Amino acid sequence: MADEIPAPADDLLGGGGATHTLVLLRHGESEWNAKNLFTGWVDVDLSDKGRGEAERGGALLASSGILPDVVHTSVLRRAIRTSQIALGRADLDWLPVKRSWRLNERHYGALQGKDKAQTLAEFGEEQFMLWRRSYDVPPPPIADDDEFSQFGDLRYSDLPPELLPRTECLKDVVARLLPYWYDAIVPDLRLGRVVLVTAHGNSLRALVKHLDGVSDEAIAGLNIPTGIPLVYRLDEDLVPLQPGGEYLDPDAASAAIEAVKNQGKK
Amino acid sequence: MADEIPAPADDLLGGGGATHTLVLLRHGESEWNAKNLFTGWVDVDLSDKGRGEAERGGALLASSGILPDVVHTSVLRRAIRTSQIALGRADLDWLPVKRSWRLNERHYGALQGKDKAQTLAEFGEEQFMLWRRSYDVPPPPIADDDEFSQFGDLRYSDLPPELLPRTECLKDVVARLLPYWYDAIVPDLRLGRVVLVTAHGNSLRALVKHLDGVSDEAIAGLNIPTGIPLVYRLDEDLVPLQPGGEYLDPDAASAAIEAVKNQGKK
Repeated sequence: MADEIPAPADDLLGGGGATHTLVLLRHGESEWNAKNLFTGWVDVDLSDKGRGEAERGGALLASSGILPDVVHTSVLRRAIRTSQIALGRADLDWLPVKRSWRLNERHYGALQGKDKAQTLAEFGEEQFMLWRRSYDVPPPPIADDDEFSQFGDLRYSDLPPELLPRTECLKDVVARLLPYWYDAIVPDLRLGRVVLVTAHGNSLRALVKHLDGVSDEAIAGLNIPTGIPLVYRLDEDLVPLQPGGEYLDPDAASAAIEAVKNQGKK
Repeated sequence: MADEIPAPADDLLGGGGATHTLVLLRHGESEWNAKNLFTGWVDVDLSDKGRGEAERGGALLASSGILPDVVHTSVLRRAIRTSQIALGRADLDWLPVKRSWRLNERHYGALQGKDKAQTLAEFGEEQFMLWRRSYDVPPPPIADDDEFSQFGDLRYSDLPPELLPRTECLKDVVARLLPYWYDAIVPDLRLGRVVLVTAHGNSLRALVKHLDGVSDEAIAGLNIPTGIPLVYRLDEDLVPLQPGGEYLDPDAASAAIEAVKNQGKK
């Protein structure tokens, strides 16, 4: 696999006035991505393909010369395992790890565990796309006794009940993510640490929206591919030197983003 | 595998005046254990057998009803992977993790990377056993340019050079471990957290020596088997309610300890 890994662009290797380095990594395919089910906070594992993507993400990181000092993950196993596999591949198993529910995927409410195609057929395309892509329309809340609810899950037992979401739109994700950005990730960056964040499609979109100042409308069209590290160089005000950052494998990233767009057109 | 896991003793499930719960887990067999090489701080991976031991350790934990709130590991991958595998098996991937070099295996000095049988033949049994089992005689220090030295290893780059060992006896391990016990593990216990420590034969012997007040002489005869969680219930002064703690699979632990004793006699 090593010879498939492209060499990093020169400007990714420091210089250019950057003072902080942030690397974002979206987890690889999960068992439920493969089955086309809404996942959200349901704690499914990576698929074999997802483990391969994590491995490749680690190889890209290793060959880039970028060395994270600390990794932040959600408390969901598909992100945790992605970080473990990628860091193992990069000989960085020993990195300090911090985890937070605030990096979790968007809570998909009553849709969690539902088949996507079936949901589309049941509710129609307009409603379906509103739930999937609108900035501020959450799906219906999940019932506490739903088998895919996180009510009573040990890992959230320290959360005051009013903080545990029963559904979320992307706007809700931004609101619950930002305290972690400011209180946990920014202090690491300010200490000069290279920070790796291993998380999910929507928690990373929320972070990118904040970093790049993407509008509520434009964020609908932004997709982050799985398993390809996305590197942000930030100035001292934590503003990206290059809006949108730079993927460690730009060609693979473009192809993946294009594929998602075409999916939407079908 | 689940049906091979014995039910826990009643007194392990709380009660009996215990205020703190500490679980120790020694990593499973490594690639170098299998090859009979001195390992120390060399960062080798688990063998397949070792991964199986970690899996079984996780199953024992899951069936015991003991739920760790936090895990502490060394910065060596055989302990890190053991904790990842065991916690994955127990559905506890999301636990907060803390790592420290102070939980590392004993540094084996110039013996690191050497074949044990060859070392025995070269230096004779008396010297060999002194290095392996004496409390305060370290092997010769490793040279900084030795291929098995940790000099220049990234993960220790924040350590002042005088703290990075070049060899250690068990007494040295006790001395460098105890600050972590007092400053990182005890505060977690005092907060009421159930603490899992995933580490190595000698760092765990050092901790047990401290907990149980084992003498410098008696510690030579104490072995901790791999992959079997060892549970200590501690009173409010952090004194074990039962000296030596209790293994989650006492029969397997006894058999493993007996096997090590018989090995020594050959």
